[in-house]
Amino acid sequence: MAVLYDRVALIGLGLIASSMAHAIRKAGLAREIVGYARSAETRATALEIGLCDRVTETAAEAVEDADLVVLCIPVGGMGDVAREIGPHLKPGATLTDVGSVKQAVIDAVAPFVPAGVEFIPGHPLAGTEHSGPRSGFAELFRNRWWILVPLPGGSDAALERLEALCRGMGANVETMDAEHHDLVLAVTSHTPHLIAYTMVGVADDLGRVTDSEVIKFSAAGFRDFTRIAASDPTMWRDVFLTNREATLEILGRFTEELFALQRAIRMGDGQMLFDYFTRTRAIRRGIIQAGQDTAAPDFGRTKAGD
Amino acid sequence: MAVLYDRVALIGLGLIASSMAHAIRKAGLAREIVGYARSAETRATALEIGLCDRVTETAAEAVEDADLVVLCIPVGGMGDVAREIGPHLKPGATLTDVGSVKQAVIDAVAPFVPAGVEFIPGHPLAGTEHSGPRSGFAELFRNRWWILVPLPGGSDAALERLEALCRGMGANVETMDAEHHDLVLAVTSHTPHLIAYTMVGVADDLGRVTDSEVIKFSAAGFRDFTRIAASDPTMWRDVFLTNREATLEILGRFTEELFALQRAIRMGDGQMLFDYFTRTRAIRRGIIQAGQDTAAPDFGRTKAGD
Repeated sequence: MAVLYDRVALIGLGLIASSMAHAIRKAGLAREIVGYARSAETRATALEIGLCDRVTETAAEAVEDADLVVLCIPVGGMGDVAREIGPHLKPGATLTDVGSVKQAVIDAVAPFVPAGVEFIPGHPLAGTEHSGPRSGFAELFRNRWWILVPLPGGSDAALERLEALCRGMGANVETMDAEHHDLVLAVTSHTPHLIAYTMVGVADDLGRVTDSEVIKFSAAGFRDFTRIAASDPTMWRDVFLTNREATLEILGRFTEELFALQRAIRMGDGQMLFDYFTRTRAIRRGIIQAGQDTAAPDFGRTKAGD
Repeated sequence: MAVLYDRVALIGLGLIASSMAHAIRKAGLAREIVGYARSAETRATALEIGLCDRVTETAAEAVEDADLVVLCIPVGGMGDVAREIGPHLKPGATLTDVGSVKQAVIDAVAPFVPAGVEFIPGHPLAGTEHSGPRSGFAELFRNRWWILVPLPGGSDAALERLEALCRGMGANVETMDAEHHDLVLAVTSHTPHLIAYTMVGVADDLGRVTDSEVIKFSAAGFRDFTRIAASDPTMWRDVFLTNREATLEILGRFTEELFALQRAIRMGDGQMLFDYFTRTRAIRRGIIQAGQDTAAPDFGRTKAGD
């Protein structure tokens, strides 16, 4: 594949950035990858494993002369970093991010983007329970969605180039506006994560009562919840603080539904439960048909090497 | 491995029974496997794929002269089947079941167990989102727990033989009483399933609003929920109807915790969220250390052939 950007700067070197580094390199999408992380330990690890061509001591240094700058840090930190790097961005460069919330990132970052720099917020719908510079692998984005949120008046050419990068890393690209993104993600990701965190917290309280049997006998269901609830705490704190409205709206609906099912259990209404569970099973089939998961017992998530 | 039972009868031929058939055969644990299912279609499929040595037209016929009878049907149907097969059970035979709830099964089945037959309720903590006679595979129980619930006054020899069968299929065996089982499972399995069903139901309502984007962009989190919520509706209806007390108790605790987190989001209490999410991450590590899951991206669930 052709080189799309001469120099790519990754700000933050966690799961997404390190996967991008592997994927960009594997597909030959950039000539040089420069990395920066706030933590000295992370920078040292990135150097040690040769994650990037260069690792810099400051974010400002990393973005110098970069054609594409990617903010791969928790949503809550984006404003400060944008303030720092803004004056150092090259005219004609593209700035994007991988945050799980989009309106809050736009509010925080846009004011620091100088004229002549294209800011195109983004969000790859991909992840694992792992974090840090060693957790990345080139296949993370394969057949996953990468949502881009182009701002009014932006350059079509810059958008097309960024889309080509995402596709080059194996992702499918879709564009939508920030408000819509934040609602869809509140349903498909943010609220499910909060619920999983809650259930694991409840089990933890009970675990003390039942002498760690909760862990010992953790069955399907709970085991899946613990995987979801093992994601990066900083990232998820910021998601809930910055996508507050949509998350609370969906949580409200969730609680309503849960109470209806709880009542059916209490009243012994088997027909209501059966009908509900039959409906949700059909949704699962829709997701498999949409190619966003697989019915195979290994869930098609075999790590194909990194 | 040595033959443990001359003839094993599997009543119901879904995921668990078909996996047992494969596992018993593979390890040579029985001389003959006889199967029965209520549905003619299921019986025909079992015959077609050669799941059992024989498939009978009635449950009574299946248990005739069987040394081990395994009830592999939804909890709600166990009483009726026990009533039917009771008079046909061979003296000295062992009767067990694989239901997800134990006290309700004991209440429903025990009255029909004749003297001279050993009733040892059981529950393998293993499953997938699939059901039916084609869904089984020999490795389903490997390194999973098989909980046995021996009743007062039961035979030690019968228990040891059943334990050997479970171990022969790759499972680890633990015994506990029914009440304790039902509480632990309410935490680790039943309530998580109900919550997953609820969240998927909420998303379905919203899916109609957002024109199937909920399915299209189903991200980690929600995707895992849909897998949980795709389990057999009849089985889960019966679980909630028969483990009502424990499920409602855990649901009450869950709702309390959820409201506390919801309040933290509303108030912008980032520290509370961060601390909570850090705690739940530690639990995940405990489960991996306990060997009940893996940190590998494919979750160690590769299907090793069936």
